Amino acid sequence: MKPLAVSMGDPAGIGLELAARVWAERDESTPPFVLIGDPDALLRAAKRARLPEPRLRLVKSAETFVADGDALAVWPVSLELEETPGEPESLNAEAVVEAINLGVHAVSGATAAALVTLPIAKSVLMQTNPDFGFLGHTEYIAYHTQDIPWPNTRGPVMMLAGPTLKVALATIHAPLKDVPAAIMPDLIVHVGRVVGEALQRDFGIDTPRIALCGLNPHAGEDGHIGREELDIINPAAEVLRAEGWTVSNACSADALFHQGARASYDAAIAMYHDQGLIPIKTLHFWDAVNITLGLPIVRTSPDHGTGFDIAGKGVARADSFRAALTLAWDMAKRRAG
Amino acid sequence: MKPLAVSMGDPAGIGLELAARVWAERDESTPPFVLIGDPDALLRAAKRARLPEPRLRLVKSAETFVADGDALAVWPVSLELEETPGEPESLNAEAVVEAINLGVHAVSGATAAALVTLPIAKSVLMQTNPDFGFLGHTEYIAYHTQDIPWPNTRGPVMMLAGPTLKVALATIHAPLKDVPAAIMPDLIVHVGRVVGEALQRDFGIDTPRIALCGLNPHAGEDGHIGREELDIINPAAEVLRAEGWTVSNACSADALFHQGARASYDAAIAMYHDQGLIPIKTLHFWDAVNITLGLPIVRTSPDHGTGFDIAGKGVARADSFRAALTLAWDMAKRRAG
Repeated sequence: MKPLAVSMGDPAGIGLELAARVWAERDESTPPFVLIGDPDALLRAAKRARLPEPRLRLVKSAETFVADGDALAVWPVSLELEETPGEPESLNAEAVVEAINLGVHAVSGATAAALVTLPIAKSVLMQTNPDFGFLGHTEYIAYHTQDIPWPNTRGPVMMLAGPTLKVALATIHAPLKDVPAAIMPDLIVHVGRVVGEALQRDFGIDTPRIALCGLNPHAGEDGHIGREELDIINPAAEVLRAEGWTVSNACSADALFHQGARASYDAAIAMYHDQGLIPIKTLHFWDAVNITLGLPIVRTSPDHGTGFDIAGKGVARADSFRAALTLAWDMAKRRAG
Repeated sequence: MKPLAVSMGDPAGIGLELAARVWAERDESTPPFVLIGDPDALLRAAKRARLPEPRLRLVKSAETFVADGDALAVWPVSLELEETPGEPESLNAEAVVEAINLGVHAVSGATAAALVTLPIAKSVLMQTNPDFGFLGHTEYIAYHTQDIPWPNTRGPVMMLAGPTLKVALATIHAPLKDVPAAIMPDLIVHVGRVVGEALQRDFGIDTPRIALCGLNPHAGEDGHIGREELDIINPAAEVLRAEGWTVSNACSADALFHQGARASYDAAIAMYHDQGLIPIKTLHFWDAVNITLGLPIVRTSPDHGTGFDIAGKGVARADSFRAALTLAWDMAKRRAG
């Protein structure tokens, strides 16, 4: 199989340090990957983190990757200015975005198996693409893959996955006051389909069980505490069940994430950010993975930000990035059949 | 010290079974308590749960309680109709509410140390008190203690407490769409004071550290995803700090509940129900306790409902009720000095 493509993320953050650490601590289970980014910045990141200096093999594309356990493959994208840990530099925004673009194109063109993105500050995308508004990696990658044919239901849908919980989001970065109006039947049906198909295709679960969170306390308690469950979420669940999916009606979200409850479904769908992120980060703060479902390319990322506050100190934990690599590799293998 | 007063809750639910179980499995750490409820219903609940038949000592009030390790003290309140497990009976609503009222008065009159309420269906309170609207135990008890002098900041504020997390709620059973408008500076300041005073008075923490949750994803990310943090929550935190409290600004709620984060505060304040209930129930589904802060009486309850679906089957776990008794006892001791 082709290697994974890893975009460097913001060089002022912890991304390159994580790449250097995972490389330094690699073993037989570490999937092959090409780092798309600045080779000198990578060496500096390794040095600052007091990691052994990695031997690099520069490649001109993912296509020219050769498996080599002794050298980390780097597809060079040069920074404009040398990075300062913790201080993002707008002059480097173009290189940061270029690394993502090259990764997307490599996976689209089948010269890389999947894309793993290291963290960026959202403001970087805004600088280079002011039309994008305040969106993130997920929406950016969806935008740049929208013309690639895709026979399944098209996302993006964001899922967070840890060892004992997978949770997808119906809304992502909406202010809380905008969430109730966004919870429409079509949205829930669409997210349900994307999640169901992904559980089958990317996770190998033939008959996935999906739990829907309610929007309100106690899932509205039969309409006494809000009606979105009765009027919107449960009817959407009915549509999904009619299509053959195993989907619950709206459940009390507070009772859905303890150990016993988690055993009853393969993925939960949260109605809004904190409803899904609180349980996944409470349980799997260090090793959850962010996955973009429903795209023609497989894309994962660590479930954390740029870590500007700890960048350059050698203390960033690589658990989540390591899990993101492994999960991307497993998903790509399943797609390849 | 005086015994705890325990109100029976809905006799069609699991409450009396829990009382019988905790009594049957009592040890030296079980606080003394008087059950306010129907003695025959208690015996039936014990029998259905295949628990040893408890020997009862009927008392005419909490005042006439005598510590007796061989007999469970029951202050009789008779049901109108024999209960059917799982099927709440509106004719019994009056007795259910009477048990709460007697408990409130016993603690107010210092003949009981604290009140522990077993679960009721909210609709029961509505039947006997139609003016109450759709409120619960917490608001009912606050209403019935409003004329009792209280030199501190008056609640009620609902807190859920488990072995590794205490979280209080700024709003409780509001539909999600009504939450943003309810998050006002005065509310946050008020809840912060009630929580801070309770941590000192009821939990013995001299200099409590309080973490405030943001309302929006990533606590609004500097105003990019909602402004309530900048405009309301952080200014309220500033007011509380000026009063001498150790209070954080609005934090990303998803990053606030993993093990490392929990070590950084004594209690978190969530802006709405699921934001606080999801982490506590994810971590402590079986043994969290519901506490009403800021009242002239100490009141706790198990952090679960009536369990109509499992009532009468002998499978209900008593962990939370047992923890509610212990916590009420500890809080009452601290108040007594």
